Amino acid sequence: MKIGIIGATGKAGQSIYGEAIKRGHKVVAIVRNKKKAIEILGSNSDVLEVDAFQLSKRDLEDFDVVVDAFASSPDKAYQHVDLTAKLIAMFRATDSPRLIFILGAGSLRTGEDKHLFVEDLREIPGSEKWISVPKNQLKELNFLKEVDNVNWVGVSPSATFEPGPNKGVVLGKDELLFSANGESHTTTGTMAVAVLDEIESPKYRRERFTVGDAG
Amino acid sequence: MKIGIIGATGKAGQSIYGEAIKRGHKVVAIVRNKKKAIEILGSNSDVLEVDAFQLSKRDLEDFDVVVDAFASSPDKAYQHVDLTAKLIAMFRATDSPRLIFILGAGSLRTGEDKHLFVEDLREIPGSEKWISVPKNQLKELNFLKEVDNVNWVGVSPSATFEPGPNKGVVLGKDELLFSANGESHTTTGTMAVAVLDEIESPKYRRERFTVGDAG
Repeated sequence: MKIGIIGATGKAGQSIYGEAIKRGHKVVAIVRNKKKAIEILGSNSDVLEVDAFQLSKRDLEDFDVVVDAFASSPDKAYQHVDLTAKLIAMFRATDSPRLIFILGAGSLRTGEDKHLFVEDLREIPGSEKWISVPKNQLKELNFLKEVDNVNWVGVSPSATFEPGPNKGVVLGKDELLFSANGESHTTTGTMAVAVLDEIESPKYRRERFTVGDAG
Repeated sequence: MKIGIIGATGKAGQSIYGEAIKRGHKVVAIVRNKKKAIEILGSNSDVLEVDAFQLSKRDLEDFDVVVDAFASSPDKAYQHVDLTAKLIAMFRATDSPRLIFILGAGSLRTGEDKHLFVEDLREIPGSEKWISVPKNQLKELNFLKEVDNVNWVGVSPSATFEPGPNKGVVLGKDELLFSANGESHTTTGTMAVAVLDEIESPKYRRERFTVGDAG
């Protein structure tokens, strides 16, 4: 399939890019800095150098799937919402490309009272420096939930999302996942396998699912 | 003040345009069809002919206030959400221009159980032809409610919104208003006076208010 990855040099984007290439897809890295992309993804990589907010429908309409793995700085975390709204507006009343949004864990529910995990994140000392990101990823999901005429899906990792090889995919819907050892974590490798599995064999449509490590 | 009105030839837009001119403001009609605007608003009117979805930040940044009185056809009612998201993205982390969104009555609450008025609208025979509009105006408000770094305000009329002279302004917040005779109505003239009052003397910020006829 032809897959475009916005933010392909980021934490999630890099591993999704690598997994998609490994599976033989035609992948385009959509990034602001081509030189950085070549350094990270290799000199054979197919790169579209453009600011995501300058993307046009023409840039994206030929993809089967566009993955939005955009990451903002905390002081511009609202860009998570704005880029999502821009992509959605581009492909209203269409079924293709399929849009896959990499979200955060903050919008997952946890605990006996099923509170939002972002409320726990807020309690972490120093969280005021970065809490805008999970807050806006929650807004991003709330926006998506009201979109009924675009082929979208959202994906959240578990509480800890760190670089690493695939540890085995566990899937859930709206609740934070925990592995047998009581921890909630997802490696970028596990995330990439789950995203490519979903790209190749769609199970979710207009909803968010979550990915955790099996072990 | 310098006021731009998107959809200045529509039902709400026309009367807001007229009231703004009457009060001596510098008003620009932002419309898709200049010829139609000249016919409706007069040959002296200042018209910016542009599709609202092609507007750039440069087109709007010099206004003190931009009124979004855009009206969609029912088959493209999602454009209410998309245009709002586009305008919001343009003016993130700014205080000017102030953005005023003309919404519908469907997002107001009514009855003892405080249900959304859109649920009553859905019961009207034939509503399937146009219910997409109030449904998307509700989504538009839900989107706005999460926006904390743009100078926006939303305005809803009462249940019946029809052309007519100012009948005296009654203001509310999130509940459908009824006049002494038990009816819920707003003329375009009453709406225009309320909107210009709010433009000249801001009372609301990052919230929605509603306007009804006094009599």
